[in-house]
Amino acid sequence: MNSFGTLFRLTTFGESHGAAMGGVIDGCPAGLRLDLEEIQKEVDRRRPGTSALTTARRESDTVEWLSGISPEGLTLGSPIGFIIRNSDQRSGDYEALRDTFRPNHADLTYHLKYGLRDHRGGGRASARETVCRVAAGAVARQFIAARGVAVRAGIAAVGPVTVEDPFLLPPGEVDPQVADYVALMRREHDSVGGIVAGSITGLPAGLGEPVGDKFHARLGAAMLSINACMGFEYGEGFAAALRRGSEMADEIVPLTDGKLTTLTNHCGGVNGGITNGNEVTFRAAFKPTPTIARPLRSVNVSGQPMTVDARGRHDPCVVIRAVPVVEAMACLTVADMLLLSRL
Amino acid sequence: MNSFGTLFRLTTFGESHGAAMGGVIDGCPAGLRLDLEEIQKEVDRRRPGTSALTTARRESDTVEWLSGISPEGLTLGSPIGFIIRNSDQRSGDYEALRDTFRPNHADLTYHLKYGLRDHRGGGRASARETVCRVAAGAVARQFIAARGVAVRAGIAAVGPVTVEDPFLLPPGEVDPQVADYVALMRREHDSVGGIVAGSITGLPAGLGEPVGDKFHARLGAAMLSINACMGFEYGEGFAAALRRGSEMADEIVPLTDGKLTTLTNHCGGVNGGITNGNEVTFRAAFKPTPTIARPLRSVNVSGQPMTVDARGRHDPCVVIRAVPVVEAMACLTVADMLLLSRL
Amino acid sequence: MNSFGTLFRLTTFGESHGAAMGGVIDGCPAGLRLDLEEIQKEVDRRRPGTSALTTARRESDTVEWLSGISPEGLTLGSPIGFIIRNSDQRSGDYEALRDTFRPNHADLTYHLKYGLRDHRGGGRASARETVCRVAAGAVARQFIAARGVAVRAGIAAVGPVTVEDPFLLPPGEVDPQVADYVALMRREHDSVGGIVAGSITGLPAGLGEPVGDKFHARLGAAMLSINACMGFEYGEGFAAALRRGSEMADEIVPLTDGKLTTLTNHCGGVNGGITNGNEVTFRAAFKPTPTIARPLRSVNVSGQPMTVDARGRHDPCVVIRAVPVVEAMACLTVADMLLLSRL
Amino acid sequence: MNSFGTLFRLTTFGESHGAAMGGVIDGCPAGLRLDLEEIQKEVDRRRPGTSALTTARRESDTVEWLSGISPEGLTLGSPIGFIIRNSDQRSGDYEALRDTFRPNHADLTYHLKYGLRDHRGGGRASARETVCRVAAGAVARQFIAARGVAVRAGIAAVGPVTVEDPFLLPPGEVDPQVADYVALMRREHDSVGGIVAGSITGLPAGLGEPVGDKFHARLGAAMLSINACMGFEYGEGFAAALRRGSEMADEIVPLTDGKLTTLTNHCGGVNGGITNGNEVTFRAAFKPTPTIARPLRSVNVSGQPMTVDARGRHDPCVVIRAVPVVEAMACLTVADMLLLSRL
Repeated sequence: MNSFGTLFRLTTFGESHGAAMGGVIDGCPAGLRLDLEEIQKEVDRRRPGTSALTTARRESDTVEWLSGISPEGLTLGSPIGFIIRNSDQRSGDYEALRDTFRPNHADLTYHLKYGLRDHRGGGRASARETVCRVAAGAVARQFIAARGVAVRAGIAAVGPVTVEDPFLLPPGEVDPQVADYVALMRREHDSVGGIVAGSITGLPAGLGEPVGDKFHARLGAAMLSINACMGFEYGEGFAAALRRGSEMADEIVPLTDGKLTTLTNHCGGVNGGITNGNEVTFRAAFKPTPTIARPLRSVNVSGQPMTVDARGRHDPCVVIRAVPVVEAMACLTVADMLLLSRL
Repeated sequence: MNSFGTLFRLTTFGESHGAAMGGVIDGCPAGLRLDLEEIQKEVDRRRPGTSALTTARRESDTVEWLSGISPEGLTLGSPIGFIIRNSDQRSGDYEALRDTFRPNHADLTYHLKYGLRDHRGGGRASARETVCRVAAGAVARQFIAARGVAVRAGIAAVGPVTVEDPFLLPPGEVDPQVADYVALMRREHDSVGGIVAGSITGLPAGLGEPVGDKFHARLGAAMLSINACMGFEYGEGFAAALRRGSEMADEIVPLTDGKLTTLTNHCGGVNGGITNGNEVTFRAAFKPTPTIARPLRSVNVSGQPMTVDARGRHDPCVVIRAVPVVEAMACLTVADMLLLSRL
Repeated sequence: MNSFGTLFRLTTFGESHGAAMGGVIDGCPAGLRLDLEEIQKEVDRRRPGTSALTTARRESDTVEWLSGISPEGLTLGSPIGFIIRNSDQRSGDYEALRDTFRPNHADLTYHLKYGLRDHRGGGRASARETVCRVAAGAVARQFIAARGVAVRAGIAAVGPVTVEDPFLLPPGEVDPQVADYVALMRREHDSVGGIVAGSITGLPAGLGEPVGDKFHARLGAAMLSINACMGFEYGEGFAAALRRGSEMADEIVPLTDGKLTTLTNHCGGVNGGITNGNEVTFRAAFKPTPTIARPLRSVNVSGQPMTVDARGRHDPCVVIRAVPVVEAMACLTVADMLLLSRL
Repeated sequence: MNSFGTLFRLTTFGESHGAAMGGVIDGCPAGLRLDLEEIQKEVDRRRPGTSALTTARRESDTVEWLSGISPEGLTLGSPIGFIIRNSDQRSGDYEALRDTFRPNHADLTYHLKYGLRDHRGGGRASARETVCRVAAGAVARQFIAARGVAVRAGIAAVGPVTVEDPFLLPPGEVDPQVADYVALMRREHDSVGGIVAGSITGLPAGLGEPVGDKFHARLGAAMLSINACMGFEYGEGFAAALRRGSEMADEIVPLTDGKLTTLTNHCGGVNGGITNGNEVTFRAAFKPTPTIARPLRSVNVSGQPMTVDARGRHDPCVVIRAVPVVEAMACLTVADMLLLSRL
């Protein structure tokens, strides 16, 4: 279905070339003062067309808040409904794709599942769907910030280019080496994958449930729900498979103030599915944008072989635009887990 | 909480040293003929003590079926309740751990979350909890097998040892190189991590929902809910982050019978969160068992520093016993997604 | 929270004097041809201001469909988002109520629960919230109609006036005796309660789950969620408490075509929580509108005693406008139960 | 499905003539001291065979607690699993019913829904299923008692016999006039319906959600899930349909201690779906036991007409045994709503 979360729940709707995208945030506690300008800035940061590195599609992406917020900017406890109009609906660009299944896109699977689909720009499968997650994630961010929790994400790698400290640059800025490589991909009519690193600080211990709602399992599902995400790991992740227990032990020591700490954080802040108070660290892997400006073999809806050569307005690398979505999904996950754990 | 799934739902209970483990399978369609002996065999396959490579703890692990199945072995449509007695409750072994927080275990996080815990053998956090998943997964396996779906898992790597074809050996058998390395770890009082590979074949196209219940997101959450799992990927996974779009394209071609196929399966059988009819391939990374027979720094419940030297009955490598659990969680996920997608 | 249903799920949002009301219908199967004009007519039928008997408030109540429907009017399988602007926001009328708790309204309970509230016209507690249910219920009606199910509701009683056949008059028309009594209440600055009867025909046998999702329990919860509803019964309902078993037995007889029927339908079409193929009959009781144009004792937010004398724009009898809401909630319940029971 | 509740969730299983009944309570907070003897007493109170007025079937109904409770009797925060063996499985009594559909029973609807059924004593549809609700409800009662909430239920009417104060007699005792009438029904080989009244005191204000989880809607669904329940009302209920607004107004007045109260409680403690701090009052209507010792027309599974003359071990009036079940479902509802409202 189209919802995330149990107690802090986001439900989204909208096809990329329909009238509007939108969402409902249900369960946000009452009395939270929202800074709507700040939220709009986060949404703008995600917007395509703001950089030479991303698709040329331009949307104003102004969030219209419809309910749940008092004139003074306080949450009312009632559901927060919002919409974002689709201003740039040049669906003519997509007419050629009406009867075509683009390889690695959801075109074919939607067709097989539903018997029909909105072929314009991917419809519901479009990355545009994530604009609602970013808007709602920004609400969640202000809710969790009031409890001291901060979420950051950054580009850790794009193809062969790795970034030493993914959190060094301010939000929205891109490492020059990464930018160069993405520009190269565009020139070569190709695309490339990458990795986004995430960090959650200020989390209380005790978040998450032992079996069915482990903190990292909920976080992983949130990341894997992002378009093009093919993998998730937390702490040492896949590298832990190579390690010995003696190398991974996060030994526990007392602090002078009576609190506890660990000498290391190999386990990424989670033990047995429950946060231990350390920073939660995680990474999400993204595949290359499937739409490239090169001929690919495919079939049309009649099953006849043909060639797809997509020259639409698409990103050579989804990772740049994925960063704010990763942050949004982490914020939504934390907000829900805080309420679920009654913290 | 302690449930998995929406329409084919498993709820489990039980601490490792309490009276019994158990579960309820709600939503299994009526009229399915269950082979209970086959299910018991799957449970036995998971059992510790069946190999020199795993913990010496011995449980008979006989599943007692309490409801939901007719005397003739047909599912009634009503919930299937079952229990498995804990026969080997030598909790004296754990007396020393009553006031201790073992590093990387859930001891500390349970203590912080609940204010109390069952210290005997990890209580609810024990790997023993997975016996219920294996029993229920075996029911799910028979349900999905009736629709042509088969699930396999196998060891892909243990520390530095990689296995070329994880699915070559019959269930329960272990590659000699893997066995040697695990035996080495035991001798060295250490433990090691590893990777389990999974494969789901026979899936219909159209399984999964576009945004909130993507097939791979649900599968990923299921894997990440297994004890010690620190990462999940499907298809090319993290390797896709290094790839170009032109390398990853699964080009589509028609077959002579009018059906479609792809020339490759880089995307692991899922596009846009929905299965495309190809084999679904995935991998789960496991950290080393945190309990090792070497001294580790920790604190007791009074916050005093002390040393843990766990000489209990534990596995030097969880991956061997994780294989049937990975299969079980995949079977449960597929069963639920089949019902959710009305297939 | 603000959702109804598991697989055919409606989530609503909106305060009566905010920018807009709206909703998301998630889970409506793809390929259903929707008659949007017919849906608008159902929404118009609920609209206040269409009769001398209801509040003078005028809303155009035009539903704006934002997603989930193809240009040809077919459902896409994706969530159907819609909004309805609040055109008549004369909140000045409500300024006097800013600091007042009207007796039997949600004013006080919202204040106690949330610490703040939208005092304008009841905010989220306003009957205006039901416009979204009627719009979504009309979608559900077309879905269940395609499977042969029809839902009707009608006024069975208003105060002491009882209507012999609640389903005799066409939708929207009101029995003259009922109309006279409601007009009397208006003249007397008072209000009155009433009973709505409902009927569901064409239901397949087998709908509903035995224990936790009994058909009539889900239907009852749906009715009790309507503003001012204080009771629900199905079949003989409360009258059955007076009966003997020998009077209530719906004896079963075979028909010539091999099907079965019952000689009577005392049980209202449901046995053990599951539909038996008979008409489902039910009744919902509504209390009088709490807002009356007479002085009532209350307190303000400072706890000081004061007098409320509400001369706003309100109905003397909610039952007239409740009829389409009862139908909508029944349609939504049936749609969800059809999907849940895989029928 | 077979679950109740969102955060304090009970899942039950078991057929009346299978090996055992059982349940899992998930979400009960940690650190609650449970009095298991008291819980057993509540279960015993429900047991048939303890009075001349109910069925002669004898079950020892000893609850076996399997998990979630420490040896000291404290809840661990983990799921509380329990089973109750079915000791009295004289299913021979039911052999005659194997191919028969008893009128007004779930026999026919189960057959139509599942294609097969456990004919012995109603299987899953048996009132025996409620033993698990009583056991779990007794746990919930101790949880809510720790927060000052008390639940009582009592017989308000049996057929034409009405009881002036349903809460006058101690739990388990039956009004002599009621007892006489039930005994008369037994002598006449007939059965009779009745009404159970309920009362919840000590509830905090603010419990319940405004639209989708109204307190009384959740309570109503819980009552309607009880076998043979055909109607639910709260406060004045169906009588409110006859009332004028001026008669129903619960005027609000300040108390000397700064708190508020209402002069009356026509609305039964709930406004707009949210508790206002008053006593919550409600009533549930039950139909007569459908099984009577008189010949009734029916058909067998081959569709041939036949006569059912049930001389099994059944109650002439379900209301007597329904009282503890009504209490249990109210306790479970309150526990869940307390957690949902974070109170």
